[in-house]
Amino acid sequence: MKIKRSERLVDMTRYLLERPHRLISLTYFAKRYESAKSSISEDLSIIKKTFEDRGTGIVETLPGAAGGVKYIPTITKENAREIIEEMCEIMNSKDRLLPGGYVYLSDMLGNPEILQKIGRVIAAQYVDKKVDAVMTVATKGVPIAQAVATYLNVPFVIVRRDSKITEGSTVSINYVSGSSDRVEKMELSKRSLPRGSKVLIVDDFLKGGGTINGMRSMISEFESETVGVTVFAEAGYNSKREVFDYTSLIRVNNIDLKDHSISVGLGNYFDPSTD
Amino acid sequence: MKIKRSERLVDMTRYLLERPHRLISLTYFAKRYESAKSSISEDLSIIKKTFEDRGTGIVETLPGAAGGVKYIPTITKENAREIIEEMCEIMNSKDRLLPGGYVYLSDMLGNPEILQKIGRVIAAQYVDKKVDAVMTVATKGVPIAQAVATYLNVPFVIVRRDSKITEGSTVSINYVSGSSDRVEKMELSKRSLPRGSKVLIVDDFLKGGGTINGMRSMISEFESETVGVTVFAEAGYNSKREVFDYTSLIRVNNIDLKDHSISVGLGNYFDPSTD
Repeated sequence: MKIKRSERLVDMTRYLLERPHRLISLTYFAKRYESAKSSISEDLSIIKKTFEDRGTGIVETLPGAAGGVKYIPTITKENAREIIEEMCEIMNSKDRLLPGGYVYLSDMLGNPEILQKIGRVIAAQYVDKKVDAVMTVATKGVPIAQAVATYLNVPFVIVRRDSKITEGSTVSINYVSGSSDRVEKMELSKRSLPRGSKVLIVDDFLKGGGTINGMRSMISEFESETVGVTVFAEAGYNSKREVFDYTSLIRVNNIDLKDHSISVGLGNYFDPSTD
Repeated sequence: MKIKRSERLVDMTRYLLERPHRLISLTYFAKRYESAKSSISEDLSIIKKTFEDRGTGIVETLPGAAGGVKYIPTITKENAREIIEEMCEIMNSKDRLLPGGYVYLSDMLGNPEILQKIGRVIAAQYVDKKVDAVMTVATKGVPIAQAVATYLNVPFVIVRRDSKITEGSTVSINYVSGSSDRVEKMELSKRSLPRGSKVLIVDDFLKGGGTINGMRSMISEFESETVGVTVFAEAGYNSKREVFDYTSLIRVNNIDLKDHSISVGLGNYFDPSTD
């Protein structure tokens, strides 16, 4: 069925948005809409311009027989800042304080709109890098990993503290927990990560950094490479941090259990050096 | 900045797709594009028609001062069938067989495109029902719950076998595991589910049904109501199933550990009675 430009624009926008980072041939669209490739190209320039004007994504056209079009979700620095500031506000509530100085985040990490925003902000950071998989450790990091992986359109793999029978054979490593100085174990299903993968590590909360270092060792164990580390929140008050490169969206500057107060600010995502 | 219809259509489509089930006022769009409400209404009818023609969603317009427009993701029965048949094919591989008759699913449940399809198919089933939250049990159900919750645009809550310090106070219940006849414990963070919620239960794999019944008790414990139960796969060979209403996308009909074979078919999602 041949359809009008306006309807092509709507359907093509939807089609691209649902398949980020996937190369789609112009022939596919030409057939889908029974339209000439030249019309499809014109449609795509309208979509490209609109996404660029709004700062929501890049539409990349690759010429040639193996070419096509690819949608890459992005976000403007201003939008990212707005999002993170909004999250700081949500977090800046003493109701979130739990015994032991922990912070309740389950509501945020169970809210699809917030997760999509986090996913978009983190994925945008790695637009220019090749990422084959997103890795996290069970259980709190999983929703973030899924959100980031959705925008990058790559698989996510979950490292676990205890192996499940449904994972098949696993690779197990020991690591030192930064906050407790204890030696702990983490496992990853052997078939979940092909050798030579470029892996992005994400997690919900960075304290001592032991878990992140554990995941880095795990990635080496799979003869793969760590492309980057981004956490939703870091504990800015922690001095026992093991050193490595990472990005944080939010920094928890202080938790005062006596005053029952929490102070939250922007993470290093916006530091000039991480640009 | 006043923009052209074609660009409005692209941006409005993106805007709606990113906010399923959310009521957006025409005034918002009129301001966003510096256009008359009548033009916005015309744009919306084009989007509505295109989504309907492709069977990808409903665009609902509510009249009046408190009115606006709402995008509701749907899927045609044919598309749903195609998706599930594709998944059956992926699952019909003896490489997935694990010792003890378990099936390896982690690759599928870590693939964003597959998860989005599962999420869309399950969410479409509950388009006409009020759902306040999606519930699952850690850890394998979580990616499915997140995908479904994203399409329904409601929070998802995670029941755990062992309580985490970062969950705050929890409600704990005992339940009988259907497959092992053992009494087990599950916990849910007290503040994660408001009383009186209408809850959709999802999970990855249904064997005995004990975990699902556990979640149903948990929902009652929170003075809330179970709206429905949908699982990705059910073990069709299991005779010890406790009876309750549920929907399955896929049925694992047989696992033969001697022959090292697995036989997978459509679940009851497509049974006439569940329409």
